Amino acid sequence: MSVTAAQGFTAAGVAAGLKENGNPDLALVVNQGPRLAAAGVFTSNRVKAAPVLWSEQVLAGGTVSAVVLNSGGANACTGPLGFQDTHATAEKVADVLGYSAGEVAVASTGLIGLRLPMDKLLPGIERAAAALTPDGGEGAAIAIKTTDTVHKTAAFRSEDGWTVGGMAKGAGMLAPGLATMLVVLTTDADLDAGSLDKALRAATRTTFDRVDSDGCMSTNDTVLLLASGASGSAPEYAAFAEAVRAVCADLAQQLVRDAEGASKDIRIEVVGAATEEDAVEVGRSIARNNLLKCALHGEDPNWGRVLSAIGTTSAAFEPDQLNVAINDVWVCKNGSVGEDRELVDMRYREVRVTADLAAGSQSAVIWTNDLTADYVHENSAYSS
Amino acid sequence: MSVTAAQGFTAAGVAAGLKENGNPDLALVVNQGPRLAAAGVFTSNRVKAAPVLWSEQVLAGGTVSAVVLNSGGANACTGPLGFQDTHATAEKVADVLGYSAGEVAVASTGLIGLRLPMDKLLPGIERAAAALTPDGGEGAAIAIKTTDTVHKTAAFRSEDGWTVGGMAKGAGMLAPGLATMLVVLTTDADLDAGSLDKALRAATRTTFDRVDSDGCMSTNDTVLLLASGASGSAPEYAAFAEAVRAVCADLAQQLVRDAEGASKDIRIEVVGAATEEDAVEVGRSIARNNLLKCALHGEDPNWGRVLSAIGTTSAAFEPDQLNVAINDVWVCKNGSVGEDRELVDMRYREVRVTADLAAGSQSAVIWTNDLTADYVHENSAYSS
Repeated sequence: MSVTAAQGFTAAGVAAGLKENGNPDLALVVNQGPRLAAAGVFTSNRVKAAPVLWSEQVLAGGTVSAVVLNSGGANACTGPLGFQDTHATAEKVADVLGYSAGEVAVASTGLIGLRLPMDKLLPGIERAAAALTPDGGEGAAIAIKTTDTVHKTAAFRSEDGWTVGGMAKGAGMLAPGLATMLVVLTTDADLDAGSLDKALRAATRTTFDRVDSDGCMSTNDTVLLLASGASGSAPEYAAFAEAVRAVCADLAQQLVRDAEGASKDIRIEVVGAATEEDAVEVGRSIARNNLLKCALHGEDPNWGRVLSAIGTTSAAFEPDQLNVAINDVWVCKNGSVGEDRELVDMRYREVRVTADLAAGSQSAVIWTNDLTADYVHENSAYSS
Repeated sequence: MSVTAAQGFTAAGVAAGLKENGNPDLALVVNQGPRLAAAGVFTSNRVKAAPVLWSEQVLAGGTVSAVVLNSGGANACTGPLGFQDTHATAEKVADVLGYSAGEVAVASTGLIGLRLPMDKLLPGIERAAAALTPDGGEGAAIAIKTTDTVHKTAAFRSEDGWTVGGMAKGAGMLAPGLATMLVVLTTDADLDAGSLDKALRAATRTTFDRVDSDGCMSTNDTVLLLASGASGSAPEYAAFAEAVRAVCADLAQQLVRDAEGASKDIRIEVVGAATEEDAVEVGRSIARNNLLKCALHGEDPNWGRVLSAIGTTSAAFEPDQLNVAINDVWVCKNGSVGEDRELVDMRYREVRVTADLAAGSQSAVIWTNDLTADYVHENSAYSS
């Protein structure tokens, strides 16, 4: 049910030796056609890794034959030589598979500021190419893991015969624009690059872009959507866009549930906003409040920290009209004490924070995680 | 060397019973004149505690006879009744001391969203007034502590016979605009409220406003400067402003050094910026990057996380011209690998991060702390 759920795709994951522990670290996803249409969205960080700079150029053409992804090194902040490494990676895939390098997207994840061991990566590509199969999606998903504890895949099958499938990796540096992650989606629907681009941007805007696990934006975020047309079915745009959104939402949820060190998945819904932008700004401010994230970790329904986070935004609201619910108990009404906080049951992993700005009818949902000692331990010991 | 270092001030700290553990929790600072000039700056959080709303009105008049401060409760998000409690507190001080309530500033700190126990607070004011002495500054500084492990005082004595002294509290919710803190500064210099206001705003802009311990902005931040004129000396503005800045810088450093759970004090200096605003924006972005704060906690000179933080800003820079030093080792040059990271000695509490944007000649310094398991523990167990 991964990137090979749709017809017309093969994939593989191998251990090229980039990771010291010998785990799989190189994935290849190949579009067998007949179409080679593609779209991509990338990190909005101005410090972009070499593979992001490369793949942005590739995607500008709207055609992708293959995607090569590696864990074990981000190839970010590696200068012109790092960009040459990405170029050589694409050339190697093109050589082995008989494509043009300009149609090979590259994605990398791992430590920033280290060159990739090309003497291991290039032979790994040959082995991955030799291992390509129509059921290699799971292996590919496993090979892109970094601190992920599980690999992440999803798929949607239409009754009309077309499918959208995908894989994702991401556990830390999760923040909007995008969350720190690599995602490859595939479909056998027969659609052109323009339709793919429109559907992908619409889907990421309300899914991956609204996961804000730790407020840190990566240099490597990449989300690709490849279409083979192999089903022979050309779906209505709306139905296809909804399928892409559903698969992105599924994968985004898996990222939240596997966030580094987290013990709570926190769903922040901002309602009553004057504009959707206001709702998103307030949601992100709440999601990034370390004190609140600690309180929710401790199962303390500390609504004062929600209000102090809202108060730092430029959204339209009056302080004495704000309402906040935690797990559906309205602990803050009209900017002051509401229902008894003892009524809030926080035993479960999911926590729902609802902030009502009482300023309009717009809303947005942002997902984040709690802040835990395990997060600190993982990120003070692991260089990433 | 606290708020009673300057002539013309008395102070006291008592245990009114607001804190369950029986520690001192109520402080009174009284200006005995002959002048009663004052200035104040307050949190820029739009959700403001009742004492902030009250004291902003008081300070608009430029005259303050007394300041009453309590720990054990923030009186924030307590609605109209909370504001009435603040008003009653000022009235009580005015009654006991024979002043007008409109000249009594109020500051509170502690848990948001709980009413203050006025049946304990009002009798406490009587006892504090009875205990006022010209050497009560230390006692007052102790009474405003919350999670602070030490009380914080500072003073500057001019050779011309005038003094600036002060006290501060603050250990968590430290973020700009201002850091979460209560500060009272006093001077016996003979200056009007306009000069005090100008000197105080200039001083806080580059001291308290550039402490960003945990990115969380409080509802209660208050910094007051009171002048008694008791020295009979009217200093040059420049000399006085520098003294105020020095005392603020001293107290701001004490806040950083006592930040909740911190094991590192991190000095982030942004140089080569096109504008001071750019330097501050970049400094804050670095200061708020949880992954970097974890890495520095683990004594890992992870410059990649510095670059990824810079990349989220709108400051003028080119990614391939960025330089980063950690403890004076330029581990990143021209956006890529620089000197050997093994050369960075991170054994000491102070860590210096220097980010060179190579885009101009402006600079700024922001202070923050590392992110630790102790911070998580303290803030998931303690409701504040």
